Amino acid sequence: MSEVYAVRRGLLRDRCAAAGSAAALVSRPANVRYLAGGAPLGAVLLLGPAEDVLLCPRAPTGDPAEGRPDEALRLTVLPAPDGDPAVAAADLATSLDAASLAVEEHDLTVARHRAMGSVAPRLRLADLGSSVEQLRIVKDEEEIACLRIAAEITDQALGELLESILVGRTERHLALELERRLVDHGADGPAFPTSVATGPHSGHSRHRPTDRRVEEGDFLSVCLGANYRGYRCEIGRTFVIGTTPADWQIELYDLVFAAQRAGREALLPGAAYRDVDHAARHLLVSAGYGEGLAPWTGHGVGLEIDEDPQLAPTAMGKLDACVPVTVEPGVHLPGRGGVRIDDTLVVRPEADGGPELLTITTKELLAL
Amino acid sequence: MSEVYAVRRGLLRDRCAAAGSAAALVSRPANVRYLAGGAPLGAVLLLGPAEDVLLCPRAPTGDPAEGRPDEALRLTVLPAPDGDPAVAAADLATSLDAASLAVEEHDLTVARHRAMGSVAPRLRLADLGSSVEQLRIVKDEEEIACLRIAAEITDQALGELLESILVGRTERHLALELERRLVDHGADGPAFPTSVATGPHSGHSRHRPTDRRVEEGDFLSVCLGANYRGYRCEIGRTFVIGTTPADWQIELYDLVFAAQRAGREALLPGAAYRDVDHAARHLLVSAGYGEGLAPWTGHGVGLEIDEDPQLAPTAMGKLDACVPVTVEPGVHLPGRGGVRIDDTLVVRPEADGGPELLTITTKELLAL
Repeated sequence: MSEVYAVRRGLLRDRCAAAGSAAALVSRPANVRYLAGGAPLGAVLLLGPAEDVLLCPRAPTGDPAEGRPDEALRLTVLPAPDGDPAVAAADLATSLDAASLAVEEHDLTVARHRAMGSVAPRLRLADLGSSVEQLRIVKDEEEIACLRIAAEITDQALGELLESILVGRTERHLALELERRLVDHGADGPAFPTSVATGPHSGHSRHRPTDRRVEEGDFLSVCLGANYRGYRCEIGRTFVIGTTPADWQIELYDLVFAAQRAGREALLPGAAYRDVDHAARHLLVSAGYGEGLAPWTGHGVGLEIDEDPQLAPTAMGKLDACVPVTVEPGVHLPGRGGVRIDDTLVVRPEADGGPELLTITTKELLAL
Repeated sequence: MSEVYAVRRGLLRDRCAAAGSAAALVSRPANVRYLAGGAPLGAVLLLGPAEDVLLCPRAPTGDPAEGRPDEALRLTVLPAPDGDPAVAAADLATSLDAASLAVEEHDLTVARHRAMGSVAPRLRLADLGSSVEQLRIVKDEEEIACLRIAAEITDQALGELLESILVGRTERHLALELERRLVDHGADGPAFPTSVATGPHSGHSRHRPTDRRVEEGDFLSVCLGANYRGYRCEIGRTFVIGTTPADWQIELYDLVFAAQRAGREALLPGAAYRDVDHAARHLLVSAGYGEGLAPWTGHGVGLEIDEDPQLAPTAMGKLDACVPVTVEPGVHLPGRGGVRIDDTLVVRPEADGGPELLTITTKELLAL
């Protein structure tokens, strides 16, 4: 299992060498975790021409939220307690005679970058860009297994909520209860802040819970996900509270459901990101809801809840097999509320049965 | 009330002008909130020579976690939905004929800084440094009132936990329950991830909860705090589980208690940061626990849970009145556990009664 991290680092090393840098510094936490098997808070990873070194501001705590660099990683773990580990890494790269070091300019602040330059004035600092993020897009089966477990935990937590009394409870309390249930079922924690949106708040993407209470006749949209061994998934569902949904609620629900299905069905290897977005979006636009739509229909998930690719109108690129993404169209009508339906799926070839749905909670319009 | 934000911006504008920049860009979220009364996710604040502009990637959601820019703020709120608001700000600064713009180099990434330079090549980008952080150190009475409420909420949540059965419950569950109680009592959320540490984990600073269960004879250390209107406080206490603490537990507790009291008593206007640290630290070092002590004895709190000043051996500077800080020495014995005691206090002159203790839960060694 620790082989996989060495293989990933080898791929990155090849990319760097091709771009003219014999050494690279990885500082973005999810990228460090991807390449080292763990990311103690503040740790950075130096990929040297020979040996790789994880520089940590303190000893790893064994915190499951950070992962744990494996002892068989072929990786040296060095403490760098007195200051910024990125600066210590620049110093170390110089002492290893590296002429240039590729860094993550989208992660390092100007101040840290300058401090690295000061300690190692002869070291040329190049840009690693989003090389690691690109490597992370296609997942291996171990990673997908973690996402599958995260989705099972999420479905369980949501299923239990649906069996409880909801009317009169606040968005905040429902969100906290969902997060507790995620942990009860084995999550390391929530994948992102749980969203519970009632009545006029419903249908909003990433609404943060308030003290509004669930009322009869409300739409209720929830969005939650588990973090399991660092891997994060997402599910969103919309329900109606009380016995009979109003006509406008049924119509809006059917529309968003159709858009979400169209998006899911477009998920095939080779499909352009923008075509997946279009498949869902054009149904909502045609129905007159073009105003106020979210700028994307879905996004990749993995060690971060929002990673590449983005399924959006201007996104460039095509889906590969084994890429997990969300499909999450929604419509919000100001003052009235709305509907969002969100699944996590893995892109698979048609020969393997097409997209693999990880979040299996029903998408019927349930009246709770 | 909205006056206060304009006054703060005026102070910052004066500092910038003195340093030769007529305009400044504030991007660090807590700094934006401090100066604008709210920080919608991703928003940046442009302090122009005349008008101030808050550039937001989307409309404010009214999320209490973000605060809300007041409508009477004398501040223009501009949406910048298509890209990075910091880049839009650089563009706007150029169109306002600013020759130079001071930016937060400790917050902006190299990539964002470069994108700003590309869109505004004639604009000189200077460094604002930690000017806003410095302004934030001394709090006004409105801010202290928020911290006082945050501390009351925190004491209530902790007090309720002490009345419940603890043996057999996991660190994770206790932490989740504390966070739920914080919200029950009116917190916007936890100020930081709640720490619950049992047995061999106890006494560690910022231990992340595991599935270990509370056992008879354990030390139990908890560290939690409420976020109330953005203001964050912190309390840490250590208890013993069962009826009679062991001798080593009583001795260690008395030692840490004495160190913490010495630190609290050193909190007076004009006291050097390092002298406060020394007052607590030297007792622990003299007793033979110098190895493995945390590198600081306390830190400022406010819109962030860990802000200036730092009470540490090499810190430069002196306390002012109306600075809220933590005093939180601890000793951890590998394999056995330990003790941490942590309060949030506000520095006050002796004439006003000396330091104001915000977190009033007892510091006796309770057997639970």
